Amino acid sequence: MTAETVISVDVMGGDLGPKPLVAGLVRACREDESLRFILHGDKSVIEKLLLRRRQLIDRSEIQHAPDVVPMDEKPSRALRSGKESSLWKSLQSVANGDAKAAISAGNTGAIVAMAMLILRRAPGVHRPAIAVHWPAENAHGYNVALDMGADIRADADSLLQYAVMGGEYSRLVFGNESPRVGLLNVGSEDTKGRPELHEAKALLDVAAERDDLSLSFVGFVEGPDILSDKVDVIVTDGFTGNIAMKASEGTAAFIRRALKDAFSHSILSSLGSLFAVTSLRRLKRRIDPRRVNGGVFLGLNGAVVKSHGSADAVGFSSAVHLAAKMASNDLPGLVTAQLSKLDMAHLSDHARAAGAGR
Amino acid sequence: MTAETVISVDVMGGDLGPKPLVAGLVRACREDESLRFILHGDKSVIEKLLLRRRQLIDRSEIQHAPDVVPMDEKPSRALRSGKESSLWKSLQSVANGDAKAAISAGNTGAIVAMAMLILRRAPGVHRPAIAVHWPAENAHGYNVALDMGADIRADADSLLQYAVMGGEYSRLVFGNESPRVGLLNVGSEDTKGRPELHEAKALLDVAAERDDLSLSFVGFVEGPDILSDKVDVIVTDGFTGNIAMKASEGTAAFIRRALKDAFSHSILSSLGSLFAVTSLRRLKRRIDPRRVNGGVFLGLNGAVVKSHGSADAVGFSSAVHLAAKMASNDLPGLVTAQLSKLDMAHLSDHARAAGAGR
Repeated sequence: MTAETVISVDVMGGDLGPKPLVAGLVRACREDESLRFILHGDKSVIEKLLLRRRQLIDRSEIQHAPDVVPMDEKPSRALRSGKESSLWKSLQSVANGDAKAAISAGNTGAIVAMAMLILRRAPGVHRPAIAVHWPAENAHGYNVALDMGADIRADADSLLQYAVMGGEYSRLVFGNESPRVGLLNVGSEDTKGRPELHEAKALLDVAAERDDLSLSFVGFVEGPDILSDKVDVIVTDGFTGNIAMKASEGTAAFIRRALKDAFSHSILSSLGSLFAVTSLRRLKRRIDPRRVNGGVFLGLNGAVVKSHGSADAVGFSSAVHLAAKMASNDLPGLVTAQLSKLDMAHLSDHARAAGAGR
Repeated sequence: MTAETVISVDVMGGDLGPKPLVAGLVRACREDESLRFILHGDKSVIEKLLLRRRQLIDRSEIQHAPDVVPMDEKPSRALRSGKESSLWKSLQSVANGDAKAAISAGNTGAIVAMAMLILRRAPGVHRPAIAVHWPAENAHGYNVALDMGADIRADADSLLQYAVMGGEYSRLVFGNESPRVGLLNVGSEDTKGRPELHEAKALLDVAAERDDLSLSFVGFVEGPDILSDKVDVIVTDGFTGNIAMKASEGTAAFIRRALKDAFSHSILSSLGSLFAVTSLRRLKRRIDPRRVNGGVFLGLNGAVVKSHGSADAVGFSSAVHLAAKMASNDLPGLVTAQLSKLDMAHLSDHARAAGAGR
């Protein structure tokens, strides 16, 4: 018999309401026997959606939550007035040990704020981070990039911790034994960029020499490297990461619209798009920004996955599988264990000594 | 008779050597009678390329420069050993008043370093900035974004100056009477982002109320807004700007390759690309990252344009026209005049008073 993995679901979060989310759960159920769910939200709405979904009903427990956090609510307001919301309750199920992971397609800012408050930082973590899958030209099709906006600043110690957390994630989710970590900077030369990046680089140089951390450090990387096969994990502060991610998503959306314009420009080009329709669909699947839009939270006492707000059933079920993988392998525990190997004071001394010896 | 506009050209800079640059000058010559050139570089090479280019010969003066700054040379090294280079000499022609603008397709870092040293900051400028044209969904097809990497930090005063410099550029080059300025941030809410951005926002709120500055301030904008019709000028620090620009270029290049893959996937899709070839070419012209790759330097005593390194004749001639427009309208003088209206201490008092009054 397989061990059960209990996932706590915010059924009310997201742009499209609970319907596609429930459809995603049905799908996930079929694909993985070990899944069990605690469903948080309006009980009558959920019960109606569950009608005749025998498999899902048998594996779910519904917990009524009267409120929903609106998608555009400010995090501070959500914290004050959201204690009866489906999001709050779904995080609490993880905090009190009933579930191993929480998943929501809701308001990102509110998820960050509530998760920090309810689940709290894992032991030894300076700052939790949001990691995303970024389309890349490697075998998996994605790199991991963090922080995408949990915090607006990161000092050298935090950047080192991001590298370790992102590395552990990359090892678990993509099977990269010794993940290649790059520090995002304005150039790859040692002299470029801000002081905290030079400090972080010195720390990572030392950390990469330690066998027990199993990290490869490739040094500074630039914007285009995020999408390359040069690295597995891209580390940056949450301000830079968030802006780079949104600029990149904006560029993809711009090109998508321009491509549509280009193909509707003449009869001949419309004909071209007819012939090319499967090619374009294949491309869309590959660069769909919704796939990058989600994120996972690293450095908390519990696994939390943010699915994209407009997830359809397929999208939401992949996010559920990701949450299950994080939970059943105890990613939060792995991250904590890995971070506990970092003796920051010791690493700093080494980094300084190496710097002085140059 | 039209007044002459003398442009100083680094004929040796760029990825493809002097040939496409000279072809671009020939083209620019034909299109604008007022242009005169000082050509810096290897005299014998230039003379050979000028053979039978009667119109260009008549309007050019060749000044021999024995050295070339390599494209991958570090700026610090270029400064030390580049005094006989075509780049150095082309900037000197502006500094000593022989030319009104300099143009180079060479090493960006070296251009920044040499331009700062040779031309120096214009009166009142805290930090010069690099501005680029960013593809956007407005009537001109481009927004202006700065700083793209002249400096790795910017305080609130510098961000305000960038807004004024970028606004003046937008007014001259795109004819935007009262350019809409946005401050790049991780969210559009007032509470988001770093302290210096809140300070800059307060300063810009006050500045936008002054009729003599002719700026509209739209507040904080996010990554995707860079490509929108919401703003004309995007202001950010050089670290964030450079990474956002390169992430965006990287994304465009990634999609271009993915599109190529998608179209070569099957016979049917190859057929599609045959029909779609003009559409795709139209799209390529619109999002060609080489068009965004160039930049102009604002805040120096003189106009300097960096053409993209792999510019062909068409690309280089547009960069020449841009340099001519900046020079013949005395953009550096306009920027200085506009900046002189900023009484920073006064603005800060107002901003503080407004902040306290909330």
